[in-house]
Amino acid sequence: MKALVYHGPGKMQLEDVPKPALREATDAVVRVTKTTICGTDLHILKGDLPAVAAGRVLGHEGIGIIDEAGAGVTRFRPGDRVLISCVTACGKCENCRRGMPSHCEQGGWILGNLIDGTQAEFVRIPFADTSLYAIPAGADEDAMVMLSDILPTGYECGVLNGAVQPGDTVAIIGAGPVGLSALLTTQFYAPANLIVIDLDDNRLEVARQFGATAVINSADGKAVGKVMALTGGKGVDVAIEAVGMAATFGICQEIVGAGGHIANIGVHGTSVTLHLEELWSRNITITTRLVDTVTTRLLLKTVMSGRLKPKQLITHHFALDDIIKAYDTFGHAGRDRALKVILTNQIALGGT
Amino acid sequence: MKALVYHGPGKMQLEDVPKPALREATDAVVRVTKTTICGTDLHILKGDLPAVAAGRVLGHEGIGIIDEAGAGVTRFRPGDRVLISCVTACGKCENCRRGMPSHCEQGGWILGNLIDGTQAEFVRIPFADTSLYAIPAGADEDAMVMLSDILPTGYECGVLNGAVQPGDTVAIIGAGPVGLSALLTTQFYAPANLIVIDLDDNRLEVARQFGATAVINSADGKAVGKVMALTGGKGVDVAIEAVGMAATFGICQEIVGAGGHIANIGVHGTSVTLHLEELWSRNITITTRLVDTVTTRLLLKTVMSGRLKPKQLITHHFALDDIIKAYDTFGHAGRDRALKVILTNQIALGGT
Amino acid sequence: MKALVYHGPGKMQLEDVPKPALREATDAVVRVTKTTICGTDLHILKGDLPAVAAGRVLGHEGIGIIDEAGAGVTRFRPGDRVLISCVTACGKCENCRRGMPSHCEQGGWILGNLIDGTQAEFVRIPFADTSLYAIPAGADEDAMVMLSDILPTGYECGVLNGAVQPGDTVAIIGAGPVGLSALLTTQFYAPANLIVIDLDDNRLEVARQFGATAVINSADGKAVGKVMALTGGKGVDVAIEAVGMAATFGICQEIVGAGGHIANIGVHGTSVTLHLEELWSRNITITTRLVDTVTTRLLLKTVMSGRLKPKQLITHHFALDDIIKAYDTFGHAGRDRALKVILTNQIALGGT
Amino acid sequence: MKALVYHGPGKMQLEDVPKPALREATDAVVRVTKTTICGTDLHILKGDLPAVAAGRVLGHEGIGIIDEAGAGVTRFRPGDRVLISCVTACGKCENCRRGMPSHCEQGGWILGNLIDGTQAEFVRIPFADTSLYAIPAGADEDAMVMLSDILPTGYECGVLNGAVQPGDTVAIIGAGPVGLSALLTTQFYAPANLIVIDLDDNRLEVARQFGATAVINSADGKAVGKVMALTGGKGVDVAIEAVGMAATFGICQEIVGAGGHIANIGVHGTSVTLHLEELWSRNITITTRLVDTVTTRLLLKTVMSGRLKPKQLITHHFALDDIIKAYDTFGHAGRDRALKVILTNQIALGGT
Repeated sequence: MKALVYHGPGKMQLEDVPKPALREATDAVVRVTKTTICGTDLHILKGDLPAVAAGRVLGHEGIGIIDEAGAGVTRFRPGDRVLISCVTACGKCENCRRGMPSHCEQGGWILGNLIDGTQAEFVRIPFADTSLYAIPAGADEDAMVMLSDILPTGYECGVLNGAVQPGDTVAIIGAGPVGLSALLTTQFYAPANLIVIDLDDNRLEVARQFGATAVINSADGKAVGKVMALTGGKGVDVAIEAVGMAATFGICQEIVGAGGHIANIGVHGTSVTLHLEELWSRNITITTRLVDTVTTRLLLKTVMSGRLKPKQLITHHFALDDIIKAYDTFGHAGRDRALKVILTNQIALGGT
Repeated sequence: MKALVYHGPGKMQLEDVPKPALREATDAVVRVTKTTICGTDLHILKGDLPAVAAGRVLGHEGIGIIDEAGAGVTRFRPGDRVLISCVTACGKCENCRRGMPSHCEQGGWILGNLIDGTQAEFVRIPFADTSLYAIPAGADEDAMVMLSDILPTGYECGVLNGAVQPGDTVAIIGAGPVGLSALLTTQFYAPANLIVIDLDDNRLEVARQFGATAVINSADGKAVGKVMALTGGKGVDVAIEAVGMAATFGICQEIVGAGGHIANIGVHGTSVTLHLEELWSRNITITTRLVDTVTTRLLLKTVMSGRLKPKQLITHHFALDDIIKAYDTFGHAGRDRALKVILTNQIALGGT
Repeated sequence: MKALVYHGPGKMQLEDVPKPALREATDAVVRVTKTTICGTDLHILKGDLPAVAAGRVLGHEGIGIIDEAGAGVTRFRPGDRVLISCVTACGKCENCRRGMPSHCEQGGWILGNLIDGTQAEFVRIPFADTSLYAIPAGADEDAMVMLSDILPTGYECGVLNGAVQPGDTVAIIGAGPVGLSALLTTQFYAPANLIVIDLDDNRLEVARQFGATAVINSADGKAVGKVMALTGGKGVDVAIEAVGMAATFGICQEIVGAGGHIANIGVHGTSVTLHLEELWSRNITITTRLVDTVTTRLLLKTVMSGRLKPKQLITHHFALDDIIKAYDTFGHAGRDRALKVILTNQIALGGT
Repeated sequence: MKALVYHGPGKMQLEDVPKPALREATDAVVRVTKTTICGTDLHILKGDLPAVAAGRVLGHEGIGIIDEAGAGVTRFRPGDRVLISCVTACGKCENCRRGMPSHCEQGGWILGNLIDGTQAEFVRIPFADTSLYAIPAGADEDAMVMLSDILPTGYECGVLNGAVQPGDTVAIIGAGPVGLSALLTTQFYAPANLIVIDLDDNRLEVARQFGATAVINSADGKAVGKVMALTGGKGVDVAIEAVGMAATFGICQEIVGAGGHIANIGVHGTSVTLHLEELWSRNITITTRLVDTVTTRLLLKTVMSGRLKPKQLITHHFALDDIIKAYDTFGHAGRDRALKVILTNQIALGGT
């Protein structure tokens, strides 16, 4: 089958590899019909995640059709249409059972990382019963792909951890796909003000279309002052960090009001300075989280009811055969005004 | 001044009474500019609330302008525009300080009940600092009147107590003004399905305009079956009772799913049968609540941001002089397709 | 093997039946070393649970040693010492994954109910990985048996649902084994006052030894007045119903204070009268729950650390061969001052 | 009257100053019967809090008797015995009404800071109704002094913010009076393991007497390794920082387990390094808080019921006249094995 294989920093290739086979009774092999590319995939290509070995098939998002199901898989059978969660959950370990499968003893984020992933014609999914979700009849398939990672990430790490309440003033720092996912799902809670901060005017324009009530280009270094002006000097109730840099985490510390929350989503490569000499008395809560995908069912319901419209996040479509082009587009998001790209496996579609 | 005075069951009259004066340093006298009529006022007129003495000025909702403020009032001064909360809160007793001013030792719901109320040109408000709210610049005055009672009641007793979550299926039994307030504020939380049940097709049509995804006329006694069909036999996540009768509370018990909530808003005059022989093992939560109006600030923010549009609840306008006509309209809500009526004090307006 | 078999109302017998075998890959067969008798077993014998078929092996509590494990069981292997949860959890269905395995699509309370139970030399446990718990090294085995049902029931349905807070006044109605389990676990939260109400002076004396700060024999019909006197007329913060009768649920309604909780544990056979004409405005929360056993790990930690001492609940020991005598003792709890009885499978012990 | 007056860094003196008078109608003047010294007072003396002006009477803890009450004080009258909260709450502003009086618009921590404090024969208390608490009949007066600051601080900032659950493993870094207060109140929630870390063996011995299940002297730099060994490599559920230094906050980051909480109590003078490059994916919550004293009533109930025994925290007694000696003892806590000291105003006592 065809698969996008990582060959060390800076190197990847769409090539023929053996189709994956079942290894454990709880595995399923899924024929991937649609997948996408994540910012994390770009990090892998840069060599930022040394745990990813050369030879690995990339990708941790997508939907597909059950091709084979192990004897221990009871909730799916061949032909079922499924949503692949980016987090693999054994469903049995202490962390899975306390609602934290991101730290599953045998799973967590392993797809396209420690085991082969979804940017391929087929993918093996361990613990299929607790790592796949049935796609409801009538669901839009492109929209479903957004539920693998990006929407639960924005919602769980940003919105739920930020404890957004109706009437709140929320600032989202970073208007990439994850920040925009937080922007969409924050609106589940009727915030009064939704401020989005980024360096890219195009993304800020998108944020405005997605519901931001104010947008700030922070290129001039004056974002903090502008947020404080917008909030009458009080600061925001919730600051959602969706970039992963010391500077943007620093903005969060400066704009969060007394009693407020900083919800970190960004993947940080270095430590940051925490101004406890200011914050110790400010009744602040700071959270971090690797997405648990425990809200996938909830998000499915909001999509099916029309409350959440994930297709807004999709800007480009490619055939799986053109994945190298798709990486180029996604990797030059500013140039190409790209958010999420959809990769369709034509052969798979032909087969249905 | 003119005031609507209750003279015992079935009797009321708009008459001249002395203008209220300050009694305590923490009192304010408010010139009422707009008020409204509540279903509870109709109950008083029927004699259902024997604690209300003849001679009482009715009404517990409204907005106005501070006319006089006692020496102990520090947050308002004459001329300030204020929203009158239906709950009077001393702000000092144990119940006030644990967020339950509905059971304030010296306050609670006393306006138009144990002390003279707002259906008058002036009203004395005890504990003004903690029982009034400043009206923000630019606020729509009619909309503000809806924040005195009906919106916090629907939100606190129905939506918050019902613990509505995104993706939930919520049923609201009763599409009167309070049920509709629950319907509006439930949408703060992005429910997937919003079922409204009533006996009046006109109100159900309004419910649909307000966001109901399904409406059921229960006149045929088949509401339970229809809800179960809509939910695939699972029942609802949240059932909000907004009528106050044994039959409607009974419907809630039959349609609530395992792990679900029944949030009672209705004022009940008699006991009901609780089917613990069915429910003991169903992981159900049932709540009751007299509105605390602890969410008034939150609701103000949602109104000012445009997330909540209270004016939808208003169907009729009258001058305060025509309050008897307004009671007739409100008392024949079905006939006149009435939801909330606004009574405007022309003299007060002339004075501003 | 020997097993206690139910033969319809009033009839049971210890008899030889075939040893259970694995049916599904996720099953385990457990050699039962210790089991006990539950009040629910007495209900079955009275014929109150018609779903229990004649021929059924009773019992849903106990500990043992894995005898055989299906191919799909990954967390246990033969020889492992395990605690059997009274609730069988598939770990995959929506209810299991939202922390409510009491309503598992394929499990829930089925042991000694819909499938053969633990009052036998061996028992088949479906979904073994998510329905059994490893017994920690050094654990007292008798104490472990109390974690199958009674302690999670008192804790989850009574204490957690009652939302007990430090400083609270808690009343527990019913000082049987489940009420006493609530009494022990309520003390996790440092309540200020712990009032226990029962008809049996012996049990009240036990309650006092277990930490009750006041005990009330309700035989004189004056319990409500006494509780109100003890609470200065305010009523209790939390009332835990651990009997399952209309009268005791009625006491809860009369003694609960404004803003308080009624946590029902009792198994009710008939409906009760809910005084909504009083309670609608009292800001009350009423909960029901079939135990989910989602706190078993938490309870294991409190037992191993010495914070919780379950052995206090055990009054009698019998050999499994003497189970009919044990039922007689447990069934005459008042006469024999019995709380929980431990039944030891001598053969099983001989085999280790 | 006599009062301890601050005269700039390193300088203080017990001297005669005018007795305070009422300024606002909501003020009370309290005759101080007992007060104490806080670590914060030592910080002021070092000059660490430049907002404290020379001439200020120090102290923010104590109990006393109402000497005079302004016309607006309704809940206390002369002769009432009262507990003085370290936080002054107007009870009316948005922060007070959302349960965060630490950030009261007109109050917060002002006593012995921005206005004259309690280390004097008399003290003026603004907003007396919401800043004082009636001392229950039969209460131990020394114990009450511990409720002004130290116990709510340990409980709110450490235990509540840390979200301690039964069965948890909790580490407290710093065994000074505040850390020990967290240690005492953590036990409201039945943690399984309570690890205390400090540099002083005497304090660690006290911690053990107060309920620590393990103590670690971190002088050898090996505390992190020891905690990880004690927790089987998992880390703790809750780490409470009660020192206020970068190094101790650093320990918290290294020992907190996935999904765990770091609750900061310490007053920090400099920024710290936050290792987001490790923690971003660890599902951690970090909180800061200036005590709100919103749990004073709860704590009073736990003290009156005997669940909490604050007198354990008191090691020394002095007459108010000997306050300079008391500062010397408290300032050399290690040398004198001092925790909290009680200063008794003899004249005040003579007057009762």
